[in-house]
Amino acid sequence: MSNPIRVAVLGCGNVGSEVVRLLGEHGDDLTARVGVPLELAGVAVRRPQRHSDVPADLLTTDADELVARDDVDLVVEVIGGIEPARSLLLAAMKSGKSVVTANKALLAEDGMSLHAAAQEAGVDLYYEASVGAAIPLLRPLAESLSGDRVTRVLGIVNGTTNYVLSRMHATGQSFDEALEEATALGYAEADPSSDIDGFDAAAKAAILAGLAFHTTVTAADVYREGISDVTAADIASARNIDSVVKLLAICERVRDADAEAVSVRVHPAMIPATHPLASVGDGFNAVFVEADAAGQLMFYGRGAGGSPTASAVLGDVVAAARNRRSGGRGTAAPATSRLALRTMDKTLTRYHVSLDVDDRPGVLSAVAQAFASHDVSISTVRQEGRGSDAVLVIVTHTATDAALSATVADLHELAIVRAVTSVMRVEGGVG
Amino acid sequence: MSNPIRVAVLGCGNVGSEVVRLLGEHGDDLTARVGVPLELAGVAVRRPQRHSDVPADLLTTDADELVARDDVDLVVEVIGGIEPARSLLLAAMKSGKSVVTANKALLAEDGMSLHAAAQEAGVDLYYEASVGAAIPLLRPLAESLSGDRVTRVLGIVNGTTNYVLSRMHATGQSFDEALEEATALGYAEADPSSDIDGFDAAAKAAILAGLAFHTTVTAADVYREGISDVTAADIASARNIDSVVKLLAICERVRDADAEAVSVRVHPAMIPATHPLASVGDGFNAVFVEADAAGQLMFYGRGAGGSPTASAVLGDVVAAARNRRSGGRGTAAPATSRLALRTMDKTLTRYHVSLDVDDRPGVLSAVAQAFASHDVSISTVRQEGRGSDAVLVIVTHTATDAALSATVADLHELAIVRAVTSVMRVEGGVG
Repeated sequence: MSNPIRVAVLGCGNVGSEVVRLLGEHGDDLTARVGVPLELAGVAVRRPQRHSDVPADLLTTDADELVARDDVDLVVEVIGGIEPARSLLLAAMKSGKSVVTANKALLAEDGMSLHAAAQEAGVDLYYEASVGAAIPLLRPLAESLSGDRVTRVLGIVNGTTNYVLSRMHATGQSFDEALEEATALGYAEADPSSDIDGFDAAAKAAILAGLAFHTTVTAADVYREGISDVTAADIASARNIDSVVKLLAICERVRDADAEAVSVRVHPAMIPATHPLASVGDGFNAVFVEADAAGQLMFYGRGAGGSPTASAVLGDVVAAARNRRSGGRGTAAPATSRLALRTMDKTLTRYHVSLDVDDRPGVLSAVAQAFASHDVSISTVRQEGRGSDAVLVIVTHTATDAALSATVADLHELAIVRAVTSVMRVEGGVG
Repeated sequence: MSNPIRVAVLGCGNVGSEVVRLLGEHGDDLTARVGVPLELAGVAVRRPQRHSDVPADLLTTDADELVARDDVDLVVEVIGGIEPARSLLLAAMKSGKSVVTANKALLAEDGMSLHAAAQEAGVDLYYEASVGAAIPLLRPLAESLSGDRVTRVLGIVNGTTNYVLSRMHATGQSFDEALEEATALGYAEADPSSDIDGFDAAAKAAILAGLAFHTTVTAADVYREGISDVTAADIASARNIDSVVKLLAICERVRDADAEAVSVRVHPAMIPATHPLASVGDGFNAVFVEADAAGQLMFYGRGAGGSPTASAVLGDVVAAARNRRSGGRGTAAPATSRLALRTMDKTLTRYHVSLDVDDRPGVLSAVAQAFASHDVSISTVRQEGRGSDAVLVIVTHTATDAALSATVADLHELAIVRAVTSVMRVEGGVG
């Protein structure tokens, strides 16, 4: 049998320790898949004394030395964050090692440098675990759909926010109450800002858009709104129009001034209860893809956690190891174009607006005039209640986000509008 | 720029004509993906005069000559059926060409010969389109999950039967009525036996099991029941226990006599309405996968049609073309073991049984005794109605299929049982 392929693991937290465990437990299966054994060459950690589950002679605090070693073929990075992860991955690739990473923040900030380094060194760069953990997403987008044209990606890619919104729907809780429960149950971190404010989802949206449209998108390019302003009234409004509120990562292929462009954004939105994403509850993730020839596809699973993330990492390790044996290279395609980004104000969306209004003749006409004055066409309008409980619920056709938000600003100024009780974008409709 | 990669297409029906169209329309994108252009070298058809959409000089009736040509690099087979497809693919691989096929019947009957030929010739054999059309399934199973252990696959892999069952649920129609409607709407073929009797699903189950468990399974190994015996009473019974009836392709990793084995079967089953597969309606397909580390995953989309199938074919073409350029080989892993197959009588399942019974003391005891005599443990029992409308609804714990069917045979003989109105397996429960 040929020489084993030797794997270095950088970081040994939730994910890293699962990678180490699976490399051991699935050893025979992995050997069968790759053709030669996969051997653990070393594990870089900060505090070796905390990792009694790893043989002491494999632990090191010197990650730089580990990635430079001649007897290492593949490097797995599960430290997270920008540095030192980036420098270690670049050094590993420069010395001819293929790399596997779960690092969404790094990919979304500087995927271009990493892809360029992989290209130059002729090595593999795989990062399936960076979005949706074990849900196969990046390989399907980059490879299975590479003969098709992806037109839209709608994803629920953050489990914490999906759990909080699911609880708000199930119980009528306020955002603060649901977040408190999520924190108590371990679904939200002590400092939940990265999840709640949409930073995590925005990084994943950048990665998805890059692979779906073969372009370069960074996290900073992504329009981002979190869920902390979603109210119990929004949730109730959604239910009234047979919809649910989800935090969506949305990537669309669009045309601006006769050139291809992309729109990439993260925000809460109402989607119809019949949409396949609507029933994705609690901590699950799902990504809905539309392509010219393939039509509608959806990928669903647990989007976080040590084991699911390690599963995706090991799938990448096997692919990179097989390529190394066969002398081939992986097909995690780097960007081949740099499409323009459509800004949020020009993005076409639909709005749902709920208004407490005076119950008297002419109200609907005045409200409709506010929409018309910004060229926003109304799809449905419904009046509920009478007297002091009169409520108008309006769903618009698509219009630019700028026109819609200007309309809402005008509605706030109308004397007959007592309160704007809910404003939310609507997604997932036909077309 | 290097030489183009030249593609021969065998067959030009629904799928073939879409492949030809997309090769033309997505030409620039495909060139960007592969690095060199993909060129159509020829299209083998029976009646050239019927294909005015293909340049006449590319059409040929001599498929053997086309696959042997030196200026062909890749062969796409979308003829279907066993011969001449098999001989053509084997000849293509023998002459050093990578092949892409959508042929589920061939893969399920003789995938082993094809894989052996690919291995020997050092070429790629891809067949993503053979199951679930454009839904990326085979690459995720064979590659993304290659570092994990898949334990179970539950799939809705036939659109015709799913449409018929969905209509029976929606309307209360009988099987014959729903099938008639499906035929009129083009969802079922004039001779629907391949779909209705489960042959199509069984071929796909064999392919899924082979990739999920890295073993060899042929269509003949798959236990198969179609949906023609599903009654409106079965559908109503399912609704009463908050379930729906689906035709499932089921692949399980099991242990028999301390050795690994697999159970592969296709039959109608009740699954809980809350199961992710339950809401997969009409002509859609979905495959639910459980793996040790990844947990639960689901893949969803249109499982048939010219465009979705062509999308998957082109994804494979791009992968094979990239490999050809880079000198590597694909990772559509051939079987690495030959696991034993558990026969249906030894397979562990659960049954739902509905009985019309005499309403008198001792009935439940007599019925329970019939189950107990075969060591079948009852999970829930519910008595409905009184007098001549008395109905007993029983759901069992898991037992061998042989014990369950022997129990049902005994129930038919009991004097107090007026009729056995519904018997169906139950799947998709916890664990």
